[in-house]
Amino acid sequence: MPLSAFLEPHILHQQLAHMACIGTDMLSPGRTRLALTDADKLGRDQLVAWLRELDLTIHIDAVGNIYGILEPDPLNSHLPVFLIGSHIDTVIEAGAYDGCYGVLAGIAVLRALHAAGTTPPRPVGVVAFSNEEGVRFQPDMLGSLAVAGGLSVDVVHALQATDSASYGTELARIGYAGTLIPGSIPIHEYIELHIEQGPILATLGTPIGAVHTLQGISWQRVTITGTANHAGTTPLQLRHDPAVVAAQVIADLRAYAGATESTLATVGTFTLAPNAINVIPHTATFTVDLRDPDESALLHAEAHLQSLLQQYAISEGVSVHCDVLARFSPVIFAAELVHTIQQVAAMQGIACRSMVSGAGHDAQMIARIAPSAMIFVPSREGISHSPAEHTDPAHLEAGLRVLCDVVASRLGIAI
Amino acid sequence: MPLSAFLEPHILHQQLAHMACIGTDMLSPGRTRLALTDADKLGRDQLVAWLRELDLTIHIDAVGNIYGILEPDPLNSHLPVFLIGSHIDTVIEAGAYDGCYGVLAGIAVLRALHAAGTTPPRPVGVVAFSNEEGVRFQPDMLGSLAVAGGLSVDVVHALQATDSASYGTELARIGYAGTLIPGSIPIHEYIELHIEQGPILATLGTPIGAVHTLQGISWQRVTITGTANHAGTTPLQLRHDPAVVAAQVIADLRAYAGATESTLATVGTFTLAPNAINVIPHTATFTVDLRDPDESALLHAEAHLQSLLQQYAISEGVSVHCDVLARFSPVIFAAELVHTIQQVAAMQGIACRSMVSGAGHDAQMIARIAPSAMIFVPSREGISHSPAEHTDPAHLEAGLRVLCDVVASRLGIAI
Repeated sequence: MPLSAFLEPHILHQQLAHMACIGTDMLSPGRTRLALTDADKLGRDQLVAWLRELDLTIHIDAVGNIYGILEPDPLNSHLPVFLIGSHIDTVIEAGAYDGCYGVLAGIAVLRALHAAGTTPPRPVGVVAFSNEEGVRFQPDMLGSLAVAGGLSVDVVHALQATDSASYGTELARIGYAGTLIPGSIPIHEYIELHIEQGPILATLGTPIGAVHTLQGISWQRVTITGTANHAGTTPLQLRHDPAVVAAQVIADLRAYAGATESTLATVGTFTLAPNAINVIPHTATFTVDLRDPDESALLHAEAHLQSLLQQYAISEGVSVHCDVLARFSPVIFAAELVHTIQQVAAMQGIACRSMVSGAGHDAQMIARIAPSAMIFVPSREGISHSPAEHTDPAHLEAGLRVLCDVVASRLGIAI
Repeated sequence: MPLSAFLEPHILHQQLAHMACIGTDMLSPGRTRLALTDADKLGRDQLVAWLRELDLTIHIDAVGNIYGILEPDPLNSHLPVFLIGSHIDTVIEAGAYDGCYGVLAGIAVLRALHAAGTTPPRPVGVVAFSNEEGVRFQPDMLGSLAVAGGLSVDVVHALQATDSASYGTELARIGYAGTLIPGSIPIHEYIELHIEQGPILATLGTPIGAVHTLQGISWQRVTITGTANHAGTTPLQLRHDPAVVAAQVIADLRAYAGATESTLATVGTFTLAPNAINVIPHTATFTVDLRDPDESALLHAEAHLQSLLQQYAISEGVSVHCDVLARFSPVIFAAELVHTIQQVAAMQGIACRSMVSGAGHDAQMIARIAPSAMIFVPSREGISHSPAEHTDPAHLEAGLRVLCDVVASRLGIAI
């Protein structure tokens, strides 16, 4: 009998609905549980209560990551933990599933292990990482980055929130400043179940995605500096107009990305100064978000952006400056875990697509220190970071079943 | 002897320097005399004092336009006024010459008429029009528009400032709410002397411009509406990205304008919403400033903008909305006045270029009701609306001399 036969999916639905109410108010849609706020504390308190119901061993580390661990036979308690996780913090006016689904599905799997009466051959845990969204504190994916050794506790505690509180002060205030050093719980393998936050599975009607790669991300801020002048009296040939250069680059960058069929290019922010209708601007500032699952293709896109900027800047007589805001190489997930996801889906008779993650996730950080992979379920219309975020209940349950039997398979549990 | 032999140019320089100090403070560069502010009141009070020194008849109309009129022989006092004018309100952190030069040069010409001991054959006046700049109250060129019959007193008085005071209240507060109906002083001919605010005369090294046309202006706000989505998870072919469409249109519009050699196209404002680095925007909003001295060419440019918007909007699956913010057809100035300017410059041995005005001026409003023309002098590097605005003293004097003898010629004064 598969471990998934012991699941009680209605509890997952109840817990998702319960968590979705924490951080709501009558004045704004969705829910808002920014990291280390009062709402985040209420969400954490509820999570810990659910972990206690299963008699799990609870650890809080020094950046506030919460672990609930099902202990094995005492002889095996020294072994690295098989970890299932995600996060429960949200963006402003968020949906109900981003993050919470992976954490609460992890609890459901531990409950199934309880119900099946099996003692796992190694510790099995669920983790909720702190500040994944990065809205209140930068960088995002902070908790998992600290676990992977990418941020020291001192640096994290000194971070200033957008509302200027410090991370350390806020973490202590909400009662989640643990003493455990992040990363001191060794991880055997890591699985994260998550909504896709993109349209691919929903468009194809495929319930499960086996994520083999998390695409690389390059964020740059481009500042083009020209000369402000009168819109009515300055002949075109005497202009040094940064808005025109920006437009030429953005238009050509879209054409470039379209031709590659793998690179995504997005300009999400754009400002002009002085921003007056009848003044040629002296400065155009915009951001470029480039993504590609292949590092060499991402490097090529970055180089192409530079060449477009130089070409048009020379032609218009303006200067260009670029700041790198973020740069992550693509993450290739553990092939054996991806293979298990595909096998389990096939055994369960559920269609499964091998795919790339377009968004960033805690799994990309944990992949630095342990074999990791992700399971995706469809997001209706690809909408996320919005109260309109939705995944069909049947798809939520399909993802949970696949996760559960993947865990059983990786642990070698036969019931 | 020409009338210009009676000029005292040093008084013009002194008065320009004096006026340039009103509205200054230690914290900001340049001077700021926004319409109907305390600083504008101080500027007006000084102007009226200078008008009184010449025993001129002073009129204030109901929108605050200030007239100083040199009365002729009583037999001719019923004749329409030969009017010289411009404005003394400024933009924020303005230069010293935009507007003030034309008003104070007008006073200098009236002083020369005094000094020559001539009685003009009809009233000769100087006027300072209210709220030419349009920074605090829209529309700009308000005072001259009211004189031309384009705005009623009631409508003007009800206008709200950007700081939400009303025009009528502010005008009364500073003591310049006259009772004269705007337009009730008949105008024989109107001449406006102004700095070019563009680079043409300075680039050519030509001291005088005889302005035959004021180019037409078309201002539109373009709003492109697409669909916000995740920058990392949304394939290009599923995007409805208004930023890309805006960039394509702006880049192509520059190419179009460059090919016409007469149309100017400027995008001075641009915003994206929600303006987040990793979110495909749902809305792009930008303004387009189109100018051309020929109405049919301006209409063609407007039509081309529409066709670009439609073409790219269909391709990307976004919708487009345009609001007309301002639309003025080109103004052709009175040929006989332009001819007199050229003749006088030739007689004085000063190089003179027949040219188009790129900026808007009060003369374009007065041209609706009386023969009008403008005289330009060079602006260093074409800079205006800036503390760096500068015209060489020799050019200021050349412009004054031409203005003076143009007035004498039009009045048929022989000394």
